[in-house]
Amino acid sequence: MRKNERNIYLNSVDLDEATAILKDSIRGSKRSEVVEVSQAAGRVCAQAVFARVSSPYYNASAMDGVCVRYERTVEANEKKPLRLKKDVDYKIVDTGDAIDAPYNAVIMIEDIREFNSETIEIFAACSAWQHVRSVGEDIVKGEMIVPSYHKVKPVDIGALYAGGISQIEVIKKPIVTIIPTGTELVESPKDIAHGKIIDSNSRMFEAMAADAGAACKRLKPVIDDFDLIKKTVADACEDSDIVIIGAGSSAGTEDYTRQGIEELGEVLFHGVSIKPGKPVVLGKVNGTCVVGTPGYPVSAYFVFEYFVRSAINQYLCQADTQRESAAATLANRVVSSLKHLEFVRVKLGSVGGKMVAAPLKRGAGVTMSLVNADGVLKIPKNVEGYEAGQEVRVELMKDIGEIERSIVSIGSHDIMLDMLNDLLHKGEGNMNLSSTHVGSMGGIAAMSGGNCHFAPVHLLDETTGLYNAAHIKKYLKDTDCVLVKGVRRTQGIMVHKNSEKKIERIADLAQDGMVFANRQKGSGTRILVDYQLNENGVDASDIEGYERVVGTHMMVAMAVASGSADAGVGVMSAARAMELDFYPIGEEDYDFVVRKDFLDTEKFAAFMDALKSDELRQALDGFGGYKYPRIGEVVQV
Amino acid sequence: MRKNERNIYLNSVDLDEATAILKDSIRGSKRSEVVEVSQAAGRVCAQAVFARVSSPYYNASAMDGVCVRYERTVEANEKKPLRLKKDVDYKIVDTGDAIDAPYNAVIMIEDIREFNSETIEIFAACSAWQHVRSVGEDIVKGEMIVPSYHKVKPVDIGALYAGGISQIEVIKKPIVTIIPTGTELVESPKDIAHGKIIDSNSRMFEAMAADAGAACKRLKPVIDDFDLIKKTVADACEDSDIVIIGAGSSAGTEDYTRQGIEELGEVLFHGVSIKPGKPVVLGKVNGTCVVGTPGYPVSAYFVFEYFVRSAINQYLCQADTQRESAAATLANRVVSSLKHLEFVRVKLGSVGGKMVAAPLKRGAGVTMSLVNADGVLKIPKNVEGYEAGQEVRVELMKDIGEIERSIVSIGSHDIMLDMLNDLLHKGEGNMNLSSTHVGSMGGIAAMSGGNCHFAPVHLLDETTGLYNAAHIKKYLKDTDCVLVKGVRRTQGIMVHKNSEKKIERIADLAQDGMVFANRQKGSGTRILVDYQLNENGVDASDIEGYERVVGTHMMVAMAVASGSADAGVGVMSAARAMELDFYPIGEEDYDFVVRKDFLDTEKFAAFMDALKSDELRQALDGFGGYKYPRIGEVVQV
Repeated sequence: MRKNERNIYLNSVDLDEATAILKDSIRGSKRSEVVEVSQAAGRVCAQAVFARVSSPYYNASAMDGVCVRYERTVEANEKKPLRLKKDVDYKIVDTGDAIDAPYNAVIMIEDIREFNSETIEIFAACSAWQHVRSVGEDIVKGEMIVPSYHKVKPVDIGALYAGGISQIEVIKKPIVTIIPTGTELVESPKDIAHGKIIDSNSRMFEAMAADAGAACKRLKPVIDDFDLIKKTVADACEDSDIVIIGAGSSAGTEDYTRQGIEELGEVLFHGVSIKPGKPVVLGKVNGTCVVGTPGYPVSAYFVFEYFVRSAINQYLCQADTQRESAAATLANRVVSSLKHLEFVRVKLGSVGGKMVAAPLKRGAGVTMSLVNADGVLKIPKNVEGYEAGQEVRVELMKDIGEIERSIVSIGSHDIMLDMLNDLLHKGEGNMNLSSTHVGSMGGIAAMSGGNCHFAPVHLLDETTGLYNAAHIKKYLKDTDCVLVKGVRRTQGIMVHKNSEKKIERIADLAQDGMVFANRQKGSGTRILVDYQLNENGVDASDIEGYERVVGTHMMVAMAVASGSADAGVGVMSAARAMELDFYPIGEEDYDFVVRKDFLDTEKFAAFMDALKSDELRQALDGFGGYKYPRIGEVVQV
Repeated sequence: MRKNERNIYLNSVDLDEATAILKDSIRGSKRSEVVEVSQAAGRVCAQAVFARVSSPYYNASAMDGVCVRYERTVEANEKKPLRLKKDVDYKIVDTGDAIDAPYNAVIMIEDIREFNSETIEIFAACSAWQHVRSVGEDIVKGEMIVPSYHKVKPVDIGALYAGGISQIEVIKKPIVTIIPTGTELVESPKDIAHGKIIDSNSRMFEAMAADAGAACKRLKPVIDDFDLIKKTVADACEDSDIVIIGAGSSAGTEDYTRQGIEELGEVLFHGVSIKPGKPVVLGKVNGTCVVGTPGYPVSAYFVFEYFVRSAINQYLCQADTQRESAAATLANRVVSSLKHLEFVRVKLGSVGGKMVAAPLKRGAGVTMSLVNADGVLKIPKNVEGYEAGQEVRVELMKDIGEIERSIVSIGSHDIMLDMLNDLLHKGEGNMNLSSTHVGSMGGIAAMSGGNCHFAPVHLLDETTGLYNAAHIKKYLKDTDCVLVKGVRRTQGIMVHKNSEKKIERIADLAQDGMVFANRQKGSGTRILVDYQLNENGVDASDIEGYERVVGTHMMVAMAVASGSADAGVGVMSAARAMELDFYPIGEEDYDFVVRKDFLDTEKFAAFMDALKSDELRQALDGFGGYKYPRIGEVVQV
């Protein structure tokens, strides 16, 4: 019975309301422990800490020099220096030395003339207690050094020791237990197999929980067995503050989270109106928060970052941190549903003096979009989205300095972009190549919109058979740009090594029973495919799979390698990387359209160094299919 | 000989130049180690990491529903539903299940009607591979997940596992050994004694080094013995990347750092033109960086944060992080020397819609100014300073959210401000009372300048004998403000418990041999003292110490407690805290002048709650000398 019942979301609450319910369920559960101050960085003080001793602990010289009685110096002046006797009138002191009776002032070394080894001359009277740090000048005994719930910083540690404190009471780290569920999960990448998924979410959760200040226990994946999951959750609740159940919170047949919580305790809500991340379950079992999280990595990330983190903050008596944000101009229109608060991952880059935000893929399964994201654009519920060119506020996922060191590339993909990124990142300035892959014509559009520093393109002019210049002249006549020559690369048909079909020429693509993996419209490869189909008199509608498109050479190669397609067209390097057979159909120029105002920058110089480097050439030679007749040449178009 | 030679700064280089020399001396010393990805958060990749497996590893359902052959569905439409047989035409799938031949598409559960337990109806044809996540849709085998020198984030950990990576090569943490020096240092606060200083800098360094990504070894303090220090440094250089010598880098008689480095290796420079922090020595001993740091805590902090941190970054192949900053309006004029890059600590607060920066004490010994600082205003070399009201850029030392949660108080000090801060920080909103103590008239000036939310004052009107209202009328007639009544508190003469002098009345202050500790002009207490001296016919010039002023009641109490003064005037709570005898001379009203536009805010509500709380009253009753006849009453003046 249980197995085929489908969960229905009980209700769908707004994130703010969900967070309030979560925090309310935790309130008042503070526990504390005593730790050494030296180990307290990042911990939260359970109560205010007051200095036990003053600092300085005694009247201390603030200078290197001599200490004197100020009364003895009243007659000294520039014209009539006063001579003082060592150990009678003065004593040599270094900074920090005690100034004790009868001494009550210090004269700096610079203001003294040595008359002989036992006598000095001074040229001005001094005032009482000059250059003396009085007892407690820094910290007075009994003074509050840090208040309750203060998160300890390194400077606080110094001040606490100076105030005589070597141990403090801090709030205990909440214990977060993470239970990955799913019969398909394997814990170790070694065990990956058909139908299996490497449990990566619990690893991400583990690191996020530690970062948020929690103590974390990650369990091994539990198979989809209701009683086993329920028992594991019940056991975890015994000694945890928060239990996270990975996957199993949506409405699938094997999604047991809600029912399990209901039987063990109470479900507070099921479903939060955020996207990605909607199928969250929150429950309470014997005082422990139980959170059912969705299984898709991006959903899992947002649920943790914008929801579970609040629970950890509440345990630690901390307000939720305001994330650093930046104003940015949207490169493309973003449409959102009115029903959700939507989190859109964006790439950011500073182009021509403005910060540009380019939305990334929105699929919940695309982990790499999280790795590559620079920030998150939040589109509130009841907002339909934002227009291209609109100024928006983006919460940052990376350091703003790192973002400002980014070179923004939008256009066609080639493996060399990864290599260039690596070379730039290894270089002096720790720069990044922040690249978005939207095909060559997408790159031209981004250039025209002022949204990137350069666009990598390979665009065949069908009338001349030449590459790139014609498209720049046609589409970028109002944009100040040049062409920087990249590589000549070999395009061809990719076929599985074990394929029994004979697919070696363009004409072979139309045979019966053959499935093709195509590229999206506007990509250079699609233009090439259509051109060659036409040249070879092949009707596209005869090719099965012509309508099914993917976004990069590697994705085409992958479709062939995995058997979901028999053939595709792409560059030799992609075929080699996937160990496919490769039948060349031609060579093309993969170049860079570059903004003119980018040419005089440090970033461009670093890019050119990387482009012309031996390291890049060696890496590309390793893949095969690349030539470099004019690499790095700047061409005015 | 050595003992009485004074070091002279070899030269004084600019911070940028110093940092360049430091980084150059480290370049090329990268070492790496292999760690589990699960332990890699915050570590730096030694090389680019490429996916070993694709994710998904197989064609996977993207939805809960059924999988079908898309060819079988072409005839389905809304008017004529198509019936499909279980295990013949379809199979039930959950998200993540494998879609294997002959199936090649998924229909969502929502788009299906159950006809009977073995039959479903569908209402639309489906396209090939719809709702199927293709192999490699997220991560393609061979794809670069993160580049060289990338600092691993939690999301990267998820992606690395998903890409089949469980171990990565990371750059080794540089080993930083910290050697505190000084015969006067004690390691444990328990051992504090006259002439001794608790070694707090090395504790701060230890936490800062860990925060910067280094592995840290802190040694016990070494006494001022040249040979011993030299041997300790030589030993530390054997197995460290960076050796920090605490204190001993300035020009005192016992400052051995420069000479020690010279004998062991090479001094690269001595003296950096920053303030505080000038006396830095950088040396190189057998490939190890040796940094001599100044002993004053604030100098030590800036040398670490703005100099040593760059060395750690260089070892980790990371560019220096750009610190988060904010624009702010300067509350007071700041003057700087043309010879140094100066770091001025500031308090920040959002007052009346603008961010206000109030400079803190600039002494290098004032650790608490670092604890309390919200940010750092950098005044470049060759800039004389900034005017009050000028907009400046401030590097933040605290989270901007924390700063925006601050209630800004500038004015007279009372112990209750610490209590209020604690109560506010413990409260729901984690607010802070950010208070600067400049005396009552300083508070009136800050109110008039729009630099604070409120000013605590106790200002006696000498003509009426009443408190506060008269001064508001006189000095704040152009400022929209009200008076919120605080406490009535007892002022009196504080005398050391063991004093042999009879000092019980104001008239007793003029006796011979008695030393007084006074308050600064503009403080409410100073006004009271002067008023009472006048009333009692005492001539201020007859009082020894009348000219020596300190900034708070607690500082006066401390001066008396430490014996540097025989008597002072202040509130009973301060006398009690320092266990002094106390002779009342009168009562006064300590109230709050509050901006009118602050009254309607959440912050003010929280402040009023704290002010009227039982907790505050109990704490103040514990100190003694407080009455609460009108506490929290709002008075229009």
